[in-house]
Amino acid sequence: MIAEILSTGDEVLLGDIIDTNSGFLCEKLKELGIQVRQITAVGDEVEGISHTLRQIAKRADICLVTGGLGPTRDDLTALACAKTAGEEVVMSPRALETMTSYFQKRGFEITRDNKKQAMLPASAGVLVNQKGTAPGFFISLDKCDFYFMPGVPSEMKFMFEDEVKPRLLDSCGPGREIFIERLTVFGLHESRAGALLKGFENKFPGMKLGFRAKFPFIEVKIVCPMEGDAGDSLETIRNQMAAREWAVSRLENKVISSSGQSLEQEVGNLLREKKFTLAIAESCTGGLIASLVTDVPGSSDYFLFSGVTYSNEAKINILKVAQKTLEAHGAVHEQTALEMAVGVKKAANADWGISTTGIAGPSGGTKDKPVGTVCIGIAGPGRETAKQYTFNFGNRASNKKMFAATALEVLRRELICH
Amino acid sequence: MIAEILSTGDEVLLGDIIDTNSGFLCEKLKELGIQVRQITAVGDEVEGISHTLRQIAKRADICLVTGGLGPTRDDLTALACAKTAGEEVVMSPRALETMTSYFQKRGFEITRDNKKQAMLPASAGVLVNQKGTAPGFFISLDKCDFYFMPGVPSEMKFMFEDEVKPRLLDSCGPGREIFIERLTVFGLHESRAGALLKGFENKFPGMKLGFRAKFPFIEVKIVCPMEGDAGDSLETIRNQMAAREWAVSRLENKVISSSGQSLEQEVGNLLREKKFTLAIAESCTGGLIASLVTDVPGSSDYFLFSGVTYSNEAKINILKVAQKTLEAHGAVHEQTALEMAVGVKKAANADWGISTTGIAGPSGGTKDKPVGTVCIGIAGPGRETAKQYTFNFGNRASNKKMFAATALEVLRRELICH
Repeated sequence: MIAEILSTGDEVLLGDIIDTNSGFLCEKLKELGIQVRQITAVGDEVEGISHTLRQIAKRADICLVTGGLGPTRDDLTALACAKTAGEEVVMSPRALETMTSYFQKRGFEITRDNKKQAMLPASAGVLVNQKGTAPGFFISLDKCDFYFMPGVPSEMKFMFEDEVKPRLLDSCGPGREIFIERLTVFGLHESRAGALLKGFENKFPGMKLGFRAKFPFIEVKIVCPMEGDAGDSLETIRNQMAAREWAVSRLENKVISSSGQSLEQEVGNLLREKKFTLAIAESCTGGLIASLVTDVPGSSDYFLFSGVTYSNEAKINILKVAQKTLEAHGAVHEQTALEMAVGVKKAANADWGISTTGIAGPSGGTKDKPVGTVCIGIAGPGRETAKQYTFNFGNRASNKKMFAATALEVLRRELICH
Repeated sequence: MIAEILSTGDEVLLGDIIDTNSGFLCEKLKELGIQVRQITAVGDEVEGISHTLRQIAKRADICLVTGGLGPTRDDLTALACAKTAGEEVVMSPRALETMTSYFQKRGFEITRDNKKQAMLPASAGVLVNQKGTAPGFFISLDKCDFYFMPGVPSEMKFMFEDEVKPRLLDSCGPGREIFIERLTVFGLHESRAGALLKGFENKFPGMKLGFRAKFPFIEVKIVCPMEGDAGDSLETIRNQMAAREWAVSRLENKVISSSGQSLEQEVGNLLREKKFTLAIAESCTGGLIASLVTDVPGSSDYFLFSGVTYSNEAKINILKVAQKTLEAHGAVHEQTALEMAVGVKKAANADWGISTTGIAGPSGGTKDKPVGTVCIGIAGPGRETAKQYTFNFGNRASNKKMFAATALEVLRRELICH
């Protein structure tokens, strides 16, 4: 089963909008066990669309097309499709009827421009649009089934679910399911992760590994196709578990989640499970750690307070860092980080306090403490410590992300032991 | 001049990531006067990539390729390109040298897997990667010039600017220069912005408008082609200014920057210019406002402190919100927001204090205060006020972004008047 996606419209090729429709459709097809072989985007031109349709008709079994069904002059997809099929566009009574009822419900008169949208290739069937005016249609060219949907994401999504998906299930059957395991990894470069997992595909035939950088993390995917009959699916699940365990053990202690969760979700789970509360003192991360922690719904169960103390005055007044510490060592020092963590824990009456103080750049670095230096402090039950690290990813935003992730990882490791 | 873009990688076809690289490259090529004819995405398969390269080589003059240059086994682009060119991959001394120096600067040893990345098609030239390990390369197949870049957006963007763009300018000539004006707009839906700017293209012939949503902002682009000879360029610049002024006036007071700057940059500029300092008290935004403000280099000039007070205790102890205010009105109330803004201004000894308290969701909403409710307080010289807003964008992350942007916009408007 070869599936392709075609997106039409100048706005994508001009860089004015990002084509998110294709990603949505890839994901939906994957859920049906259908993997997309190719995505193509072309402009609003009858010749170009028609040429591409002809090529796809030769190599694919199904193709989902989005865009170019609107009422304006640059909406040419139906025309291009008719040309490819060697037929005329004709007024579709069914399409006109659904459009008319769409307008009536909203108290509008149908315009001549809108009526143009009901002109479909003669042999096409109608796909009803519940959320807008442009009807979709389906047609077979060579042995490929084409489904044409509008480019407006909300309309396309409803039309896919209501009109296209049932037809795909009818014509393709349930297909081969694919299971994907995701490991979230921190502290390894993609190439190092690849080296550690060498031999995977020999050890687990039929499974594939995928790597994706989501700075500062990498995601390792284990793709396991299922044969789909009940006899071997238990075997497949066992294999899948063995593959995951093997990968986790090879990646040493760098796997922060073996279910694809984010670091802030993992930290949140541990805090909730162990009934701990958290306070944060941030200098160089500027609120990013708190923002990550509070991206997790329900984080108010364990997160109490973050003091984003950019000025020394705030470090002294709010976190109770000793003035003489700042005078003796400066803001970027392990002792300062330690006092920040201890201070914020106390100020918020929390079980754990973590802190960051460092230099995110681009300026502010010195020979001793270059841009990328960060001191991370942690204070918890029976535990107070701080450590200096040096990273440098060349830009402020990446340094901030790396500092924040390191602080959360230090906390995660402490929480596992407590 | 026919240009195409090819994106390689299973993750796009599996719907795991949205291909934003192609949009970026379309936009950059447009700025060089080159319009992209087709975008194609294929998976990590030597045969598929090679077949597509052969087809593109027949029909295009230039092609930008992203992805598949990493160190792992699913990175197969160089191999596929060599196959298409009918040559071997060989170790490129230049590529190895730039990679080695990249690793040395960061104090790492180069691994054997990384060395694989320096294996390039024999006749390819190297494109240096300043931001990562994977070198790019360029090669001609038929009469099409191909440029291969990594799929990691940050690496790709730098490589495009530093290595690809100068070569394109060399080989294609300057083309028609295009000036682009960017307006950052907040508080208007894209369709409403389009309606307000109706008539633009009649009023300013030859210029075009583009719209792009960057939630919660939209960017309106005015694309002005230059004929390139000195005689009419002054005229063109005058036209361009008139077009910008007209657009700004039509968009009423929703333009937050007429030079494409971000809201946090605009706020930072105003604070620095007026020699004001800022403190922030955040509840529902969870540190996001502070993180945005501190994304701007040099923000330590004006930003002093943010208190991310999730717990009532922190609101009382650190921001000095009155306990009876919380008892009488709850945390999400204008009076609470007002006391937070006044309290943080005082605690940090700042000129301005802003605050947010609200319900980002998904849970926590009530009939009176549904998810999406936010109270924003502001305290400055001779000015103390708070107001309740209700938004709902259906998810926690979008609500947080909208709340944060609204608070910064309230501050920006105050700063303009002070």
